[in-house]
Amino acid sequence: MTSAVSASTTPQQILSRCRELVRPALAQAVGRLHPWPAEMAAFSLGWSDAGGTPAAGAHGKGVRQALTVLCAEAAGATARDAVVGAVAVELIHTFSLLHDDIMDGDETRRQRPTVWKQFGTGPAVLAGDALFALAVETLADSRNVHSGAAVRHLAGTLNDLVHGQAEDLLFESRPWTGPGAVQPQEYRRMAEHKTGALLGCAAGTGAVLAGAPRRTVDALTEAGRDLGVAFQIVDDLLGIWGDPGITGKPVHNDLRRLKKTYPVLAALAADGPAAEHLVTLLSSGRALDDLTARRAAVLIEEAGGRAAAMAEAHRHLDSARGRLESVPLARGAVGEILTLLPFLIDRRM
Amino acid sequence: MTSAVSASTTPQQILSRCRELVRPALAQAVGRLHPWPAEMAAFSLGWSDAGGTPAAGAHGKGVRQALTVLCAEAAGATARDAVVGAVAVELIHTFSLLHDDIMDGDETRRQRPTVWKQFGTGPAVLAGDALFALAVETLADSRNVHSGAAVRHLAGTLNDLVHGQAEDLLFESRPWTGPGAVQPQEYRRMAEHKTGALLGCAAGTGAVLAGAPRRTVDALTEAGRDLGVAFQIVDDLLGIWGDPGITGKPVHNDLRRLKKTYPVLAALAADGPAAEHLVTLLSSGRALDDLTARRAAVLIEEAGGRAAAMAEAHRHLDSARGRLESVPLARGAVGEILTLLPFLIDRRM
Repeated sequence: MTSAVSASTTPQQILSRCRELVRPALAQAVGRLHPWPAEMAAFSLGWSDAGGTPAAGAHGKGVRQALTVLCAEAAGATARDAVVGAVAVELIHTFSLLHDDIMDGDETRRQRPTVWKQFGTGPAVLAGDALFALAVETLADSRNVHSGAAVRHLAGTLNDLVHGQAEDLLFESRPWTGPGAVQPQEYRRMAEHKTGALLGCAAGTGAVLAGAPRRTVDALTEAGRDLGVAFQIVDDLLGIWGDPGITGKPVHNDLRRLKKTYPVLAALAADGPAAEHLVTLLSSGRALDDLTARRAAVLIEEAGGRAAAMAEAHRHLDSARGRLESVPLARGAVGEILTLLPFLIDRRM
Repeated sequence: MTSAVSASTTPQQILSRCRELVRPALAQAVGRLHPWPAEMAAFSLGWSDAGGTPAAGAHGKGVRQALTVLCAEAAGATARDAVVGAVAVELIHTFSLLHDDIMDGDETRRQRPTVWKQFGTGPAVLAGDALFALAVETLADSRNVHSGAAVRHLAGTLNDLVHGQAEDLLFESRPWTGPGAVQPQEYRRMAEHKTGALLGCAAGTGAVLAGAPRRTVDALTEAGRDLGVAFQIVDDLLGIWGDPGITGKPVHNDLRRLKKTYPVLAALAADGPAAEHLVTLLSSGRALDDLTARRAAVLIEEAGGRAAAMAEAHRHLDSARGRLESVPLARGAVGEILTLLPFLIDRRM
C-alpha cells in the first residue's frame, strides 16, 4: 500500500519515482534482445544515440508505466507487484511508436530521427517485432500469480491497437466532406482503440496484477481509455498549434500533411463560412505550404475546432476522474493519479 | 488417439486432413480482425485475390499446422485439442512471412505479389502486427487447460524468430571471405532460430496442449527444430536450383541478390579453385546478371556446396527421426509424421 500523498508531490516527482522503479527491469528485458534490435530499442527509448553512446533527456515521460504502477497501488498491491506489467506496457508502447512511425511516414520524434529514418524500414520493422515479442514473453514468464490474466488482458489490447491504427490509416483516403467524410464520433472511436487501448491496458494491467476484482479492473481500464482519448486529442492540438521546441515536430506538421485530426474534423462538422473556406484549402489533395497551413489553422480556430477539441479532451478527463471514484481504491495512489491527469494535458500545450 | 496409419495414406492426404480440420477455426480467427488486415491476411493465406475475390490453389501446404495436430495426437490427445495451437502457429507463420518479405525486399511469393508489394509497406506492417496479436489472443483466450503453458511456449519462440531474422539480415553486410566471413555453422544457428524455432513451436505446442510431460515436449520441439533447419536449407537449394514453376520465384533468385545461403557458404568454406573463382564473382557487390548467376551456380556445385547442403538437410531429417524415437509416442501419429518428413524435402526439388 502506498502512503497518503503529501501536498508537495509534483507530477514530475510521481513520474520520476515510477520511471526509476521500472527502469532496471526494463533495461534487463531489453538486454535479452538480440544486440541489433536492442540498439534500436535503446535509441527509441532515449537511452542512447544512434551509435549506441548513452544519452540522457530524450526519454518519454513514462505515463503508461506510471499508470500501471499507480493503479496496482490503488488496487491494494505494492508498486513492485506491477513492475513486470509496467515493463510489458512500455515495450508495447515502444513497439507501436516504431511501427506507427513507419506507417505514418513520420521522420522525427522527440527532436531526433525516428527509428526507421535512422536505421532503415526493414530493421525498424524487426525492432518493433522484437519489442512486441519481448512484452508477451516478459509477462508470460513472470512469477506473479496473476500473469496469465495479465497476458489475456494485454492480448485483447493489442488487437484494439491494430484496429485503431487501421482506422486511422483508412481515414487518410476518405473525403473531407460529403457522405464518406470522417465524423468526429468516428474519430473518437478510432482514438479509443489507437491510444485509449494502450493507456487502458496500462491501468488495467496494474489492477490485474494486484488481483483486483473484475469491477475494479474494468473501472481502471476505462479510466485509462478515457485518458488515452484525451491524450490523443491533445496530441492533435499539438500537431497544429504545438511549440516545435516541445513537440520535436515542425509547426503545423499534421495540417501540412493533411492529417484528419479531431480539431479539423470538429471544425468541418461545425459548418459556417470558416468551415467552407477550410474545405477549399484542404481539398487540393496536395501537402499544404507554410502560408496555407497557417491560414488553415486560423480557420479551424474560427470554426470552433480548437475549442471543441479542448472541451472533448476535458470531457474525457472528467470521465476518467468519475471512474476512479466509482470503485473503492487506495486514496494515496488515486491522489497521485489525479495529480498526473491535468499535467499530462496542460504542460504539453 | 489416432488410429494406425494405413500404408496408402499419402503426405498430401495427411496435410489435407489437417488443413481441413484447422481451416474453420483459422477462418473464424481471421474474421475477428479489422476488415482491412483481414483482407491482407486472406490474400496472404491464399484464400482470396487482391480484390477480395475467393481464390483457390495458392495456399501453403500447411506443414506447421499439420505438425501441431500430429504432435498432439502423438502425445495422446485428440486432433481437436490441438486446433487452437495450430491456428496460432499458422497466424505467426503468416505474420513472419509478411514482415520478412518487407525486410528482405521479396516481391513475389507463391507466384503472386507479396503483401507489401500488393498493398504497400505500411499496410503490410499493420497486417503482420494484426496476425501476431491475433495469434497471442487466440491462444491466451482458449479454454484448453494448457493454454497458459502454450502461450509461454509461443512467446519464447517469437524471440528466437526475431533473433534469427536479425542474424540473417546482418549476414548481408558481412564479407564473403576473411575473418568476418559467415561460417556454415553460424548459418546453421541462424536457421535454427529463424526457421527452426517456428517448426519447433508447431511441434511443441501440440505436445503442450496435449499435456505431455516436459521430456516429450522437448523431444518434439527439437524434432521440429531439426525439420526447420532441413527446410531452410532446402529453401536455399530451391533459391538457386529450384524450378520457378514450383517456387514461384525467378530462377537463381537468391544468387542474383547475393544472398548468403548455406550452399554458397559451404562452397566457400571448401576452398579450392572453384571456391576462389566464386568469391571473385560474388565480391563485386552488385546484383549478378543472369549469365554470372548461372556461372556461380555451376561453381557452387563444383565446390561441393550443393552436395554439402543436401547432406546437411538429410542429417537434420535423421536427427528429427531419432528424436521421435527417443520418447514414448502414439505409433499411428508418429507414422504420419515420418511419412511427411521426406516429402517436405523431396517434392520441392
